[in-house]
Amino acid sequence: MASTRRARIAELGLTLHGPHLPHAPLLPVVVHNGVAHVSGQLPRIKGRITCVGVLGETVSLEEGAEAAGVCALNALAVLELALGDLDRIQQFLRVTGFVVSSANFKQQPMVIDGASRIFHSVFEDAGRHARSAIGVAALPHGAAVEVELSVAIGP
Amino acid sequence: MASTRRARIAELGLTLHGPHLPHAPLLPVVVHNGVAHVSGQLPRIKGRITCVGVLGETVSLEEGAEAAGVCALNALAVLELALGDLDRIQQFLRVTGFVVSSANFKQQPMVIDGASRIFHSVFEDAGRHARSAIGVAALPHGAAVEVELSVAIGP
Amino acid sequence: MASTRRARIAELGLTLHGPHLPHAPLLPVVVHNGVAHVSGQLPRIKGRITCVGVLGETVSLEEGAEAAGVCALNALAVLELALGDLDRIQQFLRVTGFVVSSANFKQQPMVIDGASRIFHSVFEDAGRHARSAIGVAALPHGAAVEVELSVAIGP
Repeated sequence: MASTRRARIAELGLTLHGPHLPHAPLLPVVVHNGVAHVSGQLPRIKGRITCVGVLGETVSLEEGAEAAGVCALNALAVLELALGDLDRIQQFLRVTGFVVSSANFKQQPMVIDGASRIFHSVFEDAGRHARSAIGVAALPHGAAVEVELSVAIGP
Repeated sequence: MASTRRARIAELGLTLHGPHLPHAPLLPVVVHNGVAHVSGQLPRIKGRITCVGVLGETVSLEEGAEAAGVCALNALAVLELALGDLDRIQQFLRVTGFVVSSANFKQQPMVIDGASRIFHSVFEDAGRHARSAIGVAALPHGAAVEVELSVAIGP
Repeated sequence: MASTRRARIAELGLTLHGPHLPHAPLLPVVVHNGVAHVSGQLPRIKGRITCVGVLGETVSLEEGAEAAGVCALNALAVLELALGDLDRIQQFLRVTGFVVSSANFKQQPMVIDGASRIFHSVFEDAGRHARSAIGVAALPHGAAVEVELSVAIGP
């Protein structure tokens, strides 16, 4: 049986690069008691960080939102690897988006919307989630955005 | 049957404004497997952010703690909306408090105590929780504080 | 029956100081439905913060990683207190590491590896986890690192 969500990803014209695996002994995804905990995802395509810098200074809102979308797609890539099929995802639970921000940047939610829109487009109501958007000082490899999340899964 | 916790909120002289709902497709609260995941709450009353700025610079400890209390009350407002009755809350699990901080500000715990005290006052032992307090660069709409949390719920 | 993990900690030459308990009404650990949620842990030995400052400025990578290791050991100390025996831990789920960072510091993962290595050394495969590493503006008491985590537990 073909994956409904995989078909939807193709229909939306989206591509899952990766999956990008963290270095040992970290795990990209830990599943326990019906919840998959996903490691923080960076905006990375084929190993290269696609968006480096600071929102409110060197990175525009549009670039930040696009980077958050890359983080979201990378989360789907590691979830597919861990679960075998994205159709096992029953409900997104919590998304936390970290945005490297100048002191005056106030639009972290509009940046992380780039990730939330993808989860919603692919999973419809099951892709809706509780969320926090936070402006931080710096992120790994100079990335401008990082997205972590937990999802509920079925058998 | 009247809500015991609603009565306690009134007794303490506290007011639940809101609930403030996040923009689509976000959810204020996601419930799964006995846990309610609450979106990050800002210090907002009737749509207006009540505390803007930086702890250690433009916002005092007292103002920050009061703002954390507003975040806490907003969390209770969305939980009541999602659960129907705050009495369904069995135990607070985890609270994370983000505080916009100057480089030298070290009292994030005393700021977030403004939220923890409210949860404890209303829910007594069930309102105690594991917590982290983090100093960040910036928050949505320039808010000085954001509080996210998860609680265990019953039927 | 002696604790296997306690024996392993001794074998590795590690020491559990503490446990450091947060002020009331906070809890160091909340257990619900097979998951233990651990409060954010600072690099603290006998009440004193062992590593104060900013990665990329006043704190070296090595000092930061060592401080993350102290946070990890403090997490094990409060888990042992809450669970009675570290052998009840079945799987580490999620670790979030917060690192006070200058704007140009990009090696948050190498700092938090100081915590991840300890969890892996003591618990082997059960100590592997999903992780996020975040660069923040400031932390309580001026600490350079804070580590929060959730673990799955058995009876």
